[in-house]
Amino acid sequence: MTEPVLDHGVVPPLCTPLTPDGDLDVPSLERLVGFLLDAGVHGLFVTGSTGEVAYLPDDLRYRALEVAVSVAAEQVPVVAGIIDTSTPRVIVHARAAKARGARAVVATAPFYAPTDPVEFPGHFRAIRAAADLPLIAYDIPGSVHAKLPPELIAELAAEGTLAGMKDSSGDLDGLRSVLDLVRDRSFRVLTGSETMADVALLLGAHGLVPGLGNVDPHGYLRLYEAAQRGDWAGAAAEQRRLRALLATLIGVGGPRMGRYSSAIGAFKEALVARGVLAQGTTSVPMIPLDEAERAAVRRHLAAAGLG
Amino acid sequence: MTEPVLDHGVVPPLCTPLTPDGDLDVPSLERLVGFLLDAGVHGLFVTGSTGEVAYLPDDLRYRALEVAVSVAAEQVPVVAGIIDTSTPRVIVHARAAKARGARAVVATAPFYAPTDPVEFPGHFRAIRAAADLPLIAYDIPGSVHAKLPPELIAELAAEGTLAGMKDSSGDLDGLRSVLDLVRDRSFRVLTGSETMADVALLLGAHGLVPGLGNVDPHGYLRLYEAAQRGDWAGAAAEQRRLRALLATLIGVGGPRMGRYSSAIGAFKEALVARGVLAQGTTSVPMIPLDEAERAAVRRHLAAAGLG
Amino acid sequence: MTEPVLDHGVVPPLCTPLTPDGDLDVPSLERLVGFLLDAGVHGLFVTGSTGEVAYLPDDLRYRALEVAVSVAAEQVPVVAGIIDTSTPRVIVHARAAKARGARAVVATAPFYAPTDPVEFPGHFRAIRAAADLPLIAYDIPGSVHAKLPPELIAELAAEGTLAGMKDSSGDLDGLRSVLDLVRDRSFRVLTGSETMADVALLLGAHGLVPGLGNVDPHGYLRLYEAAQRGDWAGAAAEQRRLRALLATLIGVGGPRMGRYSSAIGAFKEALVARGVLAQGTTSVPMIPLDEAERAAVRRHLAAAGLG
Amino acid sequence: MTEPVLDHGVVPPLCTPLTPDGDLDVPSLERLVGFLLDAGVHGLFVTGSTGEVAYLPDDLRYRALEVAVSVAAEQVPVVAGIIDTSTPRVIVHARAAKARGARAVVATAPFYAPTDPVEFPGHFRAIRAAADLPLIAYDIPGSVHAKLPPELIAELAAEGTLAGMKDSSGDLDGLRSVLDLVRDRSFRVLTGSETMADVALLLGAHGLVPGLGNVDPHGYLRLYEAAQRGDWAGAAAEQRRLRALLATLIGVGGPRMGRYSSAIGAFKEALVARGVLAQGTTSVPMIPLDEAERAAVRRHLAAAGLG
Repeated sequence: MTEPVLDHGVVPPLCTPLTPDGDLDVPSLERLVGFLLDAGVHGLFVTGSTGEVAYLPDDLRYRALEVAVSVAAEQVPVVAGIIDTSTPRVIVHARAAKARGARAVVATAPFYAPTDPVEFPGHFRAIRAAADLPLIAYDIPGSVHAKLPPELIAELAAEGTLAGMKDSSGDLDGLRSVLDLVRDRSFRVLTGSETMADVALLLGAHGLVPGLGNVDPHGYLRLYEAAQRGDWAGAAAEQRRLRALLATLIGVGGPRMGRYSSAIGAFKEALVARGVLAQGTTSVPMIPLDEAERAAVRRHLAAAGLG
Repeated sequence: MTEPVLDHGVVPPLCTPLTPDGDLDVPSLERLVGFLLDAGVHGLFVTGSTGEVAYLPDDLRYRALEVAVSVAAEQVPVVAGIIDTSTPRVIVHARAAKARGARAVVATAPFYAPTDPVEFPGHFRAIRAAADLPLIAYDIPGSVHAKLPPELIAELAAEGTLAGMKDSSGDLDGLRSVLDLVRDRSFRVLTGSETMADVALLLGAHGLVPGLGNVDPHGYLRLYEAAQRGDWAGAAAEQRRLRALLATLIGVGGPRMGRYSSAIGAFKEALVARGVLAQGTTSVPMIPLDEAERAAVRRHLAAAGLG
Repeated sequence: MTEPVLDHGVVPPLCTPLTPDGDLDVPSLERLVGFLLDAGVHGLFVTGSTGEVAYLPDDLRYRALEVAVSVAAEQVPVVAGIIDTSTPRVIVHARAAKARGARAVVATAPFYAPTDPVEFPGHFRAIRAAADLPLIAYDIPGSVHAKLPPELIAELAAEGTLAGMKDSSGDLDGLRSVLDLVRDRSFRVLTGSETMADVALLLGAHGLVPGLGNVDPHGYLRLYEAAQRGDWAGAAAEQRRLRALLATLIGVGGPRMGRYSSAIGAFKEALVARGVLAQGTTSVPMIPLDEAERAAVRRHLAAAGLG
Repeated sequence: MTEPVLDHGVVPPLCTPLTPDGDLDVPSLERLVGFLLDAGVHGLFVTGSTGEVAYLPDDLRYRALEVAVSVAAEQVPVVAGIIDTSTPRVIVHARAAKARGARAVVATAPFYAPTDPVEFPGHFRAIRAAADLPLIAYDIPGSVHAKLPPELIAELAAEGTLAGMKDSSGDLDGLRSVLDLVRDRSFRVLTGSETMADVALLLGAHGLVPGLGNVDPHGYLRLYEAAQRGDWAGAAAEQRRLRALLATLIGVGGPRMGRYSSAIGAFKEALVARGVLAQGTTSVPMIPLDEAERAAVRRHLAAAGLG
C-alpha cells in the first residue's frame, strides 16, 4: 500500500482571477490561496473546470499553478488539472505541472476526436508513464461526452496507473461502484459535486472538490467535519444551506447567458464582495454579469450568512 | 464584395505524418504536399480532424503548417485548423497560424466547458478581431456537441466576421439553409463529407475537404470536375466508388478499435502503400493497425483501382 | 421480383382532423382525402407522425383509417402507420390495419423500453409474420432514439421481411447506403423529408411522404414530376419555395410552444383556410395557435401563392 | 393536507408472468402477488417498466391489474402504470385502471412525438382531470428522453395535480430538490432505484419500487426497516448485497442481448427457481436466456443466499 496523494478533506478547485484585460491577476490569486488556507482547506486544485481551464492559454495555466504552489508553500498539496483533447497534448501539461511543483495531476478521458472507450486505458497509461506524478482520473461526462466505467477505474487503480478519481459525473451509483471495486486503500475518491457532497462522503468518498468552496470554504469544512464525526444530520443541514446558495448563484444571470457563465461570474463576484478578488472578470466569450446581477450576488451572499 | 479566400475546389485535410516515436515526419509531409499538388488540388487544409489535430502538441501543429506553407509556395492557399476548447486558446493558435503563412483559419464552436449558444457570436467575433485573417467556421457537432445554427452563420457572414464555413455536420439540410441565407457571394461553403460531396456541390457548396482525398485526390478532383460540368451522373459514379473505398477503410480495424482509429490508420497505411509516407504511425492512444489489417488496406486500395 | 407495394410518387401523411372536443372529424377527413386525390397524389399514409398518431387512441386511429380507405376507394393505396412501443402492441395495430383495408403497414423500431439493436430483426420479423401485409420500416431516430442501420434494412429486405423503408432520419448518407445495398428492385424507399425531397429523389428514392403535402400537395407533385423528367433545377426551385413555407409555419407559434405543435397547428389552420378542415383543433397537450398566429398562417399561405 | 396514497414502504413493480405463447399466465401472477404479500410488501405496482409494460397489449395490461387487485384484496394498495405516448392515450389507460380498482396511476412525460417541456403541465393536468385517481409522475428520462424538472413537480404538487413522484432518473440530486421544494406532507416520493435505495431513503424518499424486489422482497424490506430505525450502516450492508445480485443478473445474458432483456429474463428465471412462476417467458422481441444462462441465474441466487 502506497501513501495516498491527498489524505482527505476539502480541496477547492480554485477560481482563476483575471485582470480586466484577461491576464492572470497574481495578487488576487495570492489572496485567494491565502483565504482558503486560512479557512483550513486540505488541498488546492488548480486549473479545473471552475478555474476556467478550457479558456486559459498554457502560459496562464502554468503561472496560476506556480502562484498556488508558491503561496501554499508545502502547507497543503496542490493538484493540477491537465485538461486537453488527447494524450500527447495532456502529457505536455503533465510535465509542465510536475516542473512547477504539482503533487498530482488530474486528467479526463480524451475528447473532441471520437476516441473509442477501448482506447481509454492506453490514454491514462501513457500519461502516467510520461508524467511521473500520481494521476487522478477526472470523470466528467458533461464535458467530454463519455463516462469512465467503474470497472476501468478499478483496473487502472489495481495496476498502479491511477492514484485516485475525481467524480464530476453526478452519478453517485457509479461512484459507489468504484468504491466497492477498488481494493487499494490508498486510492482516493473525490467528488466534484457541490450539492451532494454529504452523500458522497457517506458512501465513502475521501474528499470534496466543490467550486462553491471558493466562496464558502468554511461551509464545506463544517460539512466535512460533521461527516467525519458521523453527524450526518449536521452535514445535511450544512449541505442544504450550500445547495440553496448555489441555486441562487447559478440563476443570477438568467437566460441571457449560460448557467456556467452565471455560476463562475457569481463565484468571482462573491469573492470581490468578500474582499478577495480585485474584480470579477471572466474569460471571453463568457457573458459578464451586469450591475444588477452583481448586486443580486451580494444579496444572495448576505442571505446565506456570508455578507 | 470581397475576394473569396478560396476560389473553389478540392482542399484535402492533410494527414499529419508521424515518425515511429510520434514526432513530425517532415520528409513524409513534404512528399504528401507534393503528391497532392501534383494531383492538382486547389488548396490544403492543415491540422484538421483528419490531421489528428486533437492529438498534436502545439509545436508539432505549427511545424506541420510551416512545412505545408513552404512546400505549397503560394501555388495554392494553405488553411489552418485552430482547434481548441475556447476563445483565448483558439486566439493563440490563430496568431501562430498567421505568423506561419496560413491564408485563413478554421475554428469550431467552443467545447468542453458548457458554453451556451448565446456565447457563440462573441467567440467568433473575438477570434476574427484577434487573428486578422479570414475566419472559417467549422461546424462539427460530432466533436463539439453543438450545432452552429444556419441563422448564426448568416448573421456572422453578413457582418464580416466569417469568410466561410466548413460543414462536417452531416446535415445537408442545414448546409442548404446556409446557402439560402448567405447573400455575400464571396462567402465560401466547404463540405467535410467524403460520401456526399456530389450532393453538397449540387446544392451549391464551393469546395470539398475530404479526408479520403489524402489517399485518392484524383478521385475527388474527377468528382469535382464532373460537378463543374453539370455531369451529375458522372459525379455520382465517382462518389459511389469513393463511398465503397471509405467504407472498407473505416471497417478495416474492426471492433478492436474505434472507427476513427481505423480510418486514420488506413489512410496513412494507404499513403505508405502509395509511396508517400515512410510509415503509418498514428497518435497515442489510437490503436495501430496490425499486419493483417495493413494487408487488407492494400487489397482494398487495389480493388478501388489505386493499387 | 415481387410487385412493389407503392409504385412511386407523392404519398402525404394525412393530418387527422379533430372536432373541438378531440374526436375524429369525419367530414373534414373525407374532404382532406378528396382534396389530396383531386390534386393527384399517388397514395395516402394514415396515422403517421403528422397525423398525431402518438396522441390518438386506438379507436380513433382505426376509424381514421377506415374513412381514408373508404374515400380512396382503391383509387390509390392507403398505408397505415402502426406506431407503438414494442412488438406485441404493434402487432395488434397491424392486424387492425389489415382488417380495415390498409395495403401496407409502417412500423418503427421499438421505443420506450431499452431495446438493444440486436433485437430489432426479431421485432420486424414478428410483425411481418403476424400482419400478413407488406411491411415498411420507419426510420425515425428523433422519435425512437435509435437509428436503423442500412445493413439491417438490406438484410431484412433480402429475406422478404421488409417491402420498403420510410426515412425520416434526416440522414441522406444513410438513405444512399440503403439504396446502394438493397438489390430487390421492388423495394421502395420513401423519404419523410419536406425540405430535401428533391435530393432524396435524385439519390434514387421512389416516393415522398411530406407532412407539408397536406397543405400544398400540388407543390410536391410538381417537384416530383420535375424530378421524373430529370429537371433537377425545376425540382430545386419548387423545393426552395416549399422550404420557405415550412420554415414560416414551424416558426409561427414561437417559443411559447414546441416546434411540432406549431407545425401541426399551422398545417391544420392552413387546411381550414383552404376550405378543407372545419377547424384546426390539435391533440392535448399541444398548445393551440392563438388568433394572431392563425392570421400569420394565412399571411404565409398567401405569400407562398396558396392564399 | 390530504391523506397520502401510499403510506410508505416497499412497493415492488411486478413482473408480468407470461405463458409460453405470450399470454398472461394468471396462476403465476397470483402466486407472485401472494409471494410478495407474504413477504410483507406495502403495496404493488402493476404494469411498470419491470412489468414489460411497453410490450403488453392493452387487454393483457388490464387483466394483469385485475388479477393483482383481486389477490391483494385491499390488504395493500395496487398502483397501475399507465404508460403511453401522449395524453389522450394515457387517459384511456387511466380510466381503465380506475375501473379495475387501481388506487393510483403512474404516468410519464409524453414521448415519441417531440413534445416540448412547456406542454408537460397540460399533459399531467389533463390526465388528473380525466382519471379521478391520485396521479404519480414517473420521471424516467432513459425511456422518454426528457427530464421532469423538480420545479415542475413542485408546482404540480402544490396545485393538487400530482400526489407523488416515482423517480427512475438516477438523479439523486434532482430527487433531493423535489424533496426540498414540495411542501405538502402527503406528497409521496418513491425511488425506482434498486441500487441506491438506502440513499434515497436517507434523503427523505418514502418508498421503494425496485424491480429486483420481485426476486428478493425480503432484502428490500430489511433495507427499508433498517432505514426506518435509522440504522444506515445496516441498510447499506443490505444494499451492498442487493447491488451485487443485480449486477450479476444484468450481466447474465452478456453481449448477445440487451441489458434489459438480461435483467427481466433473469428476474423471471429466478422466480421460476423460487417456485413462483411456471416459466420465465419474456415478451417478443426480447432474446430469451438459454440453458447455460438460466443455470447461471440459479448459481447467482444461491450465492446471494436465495437458493
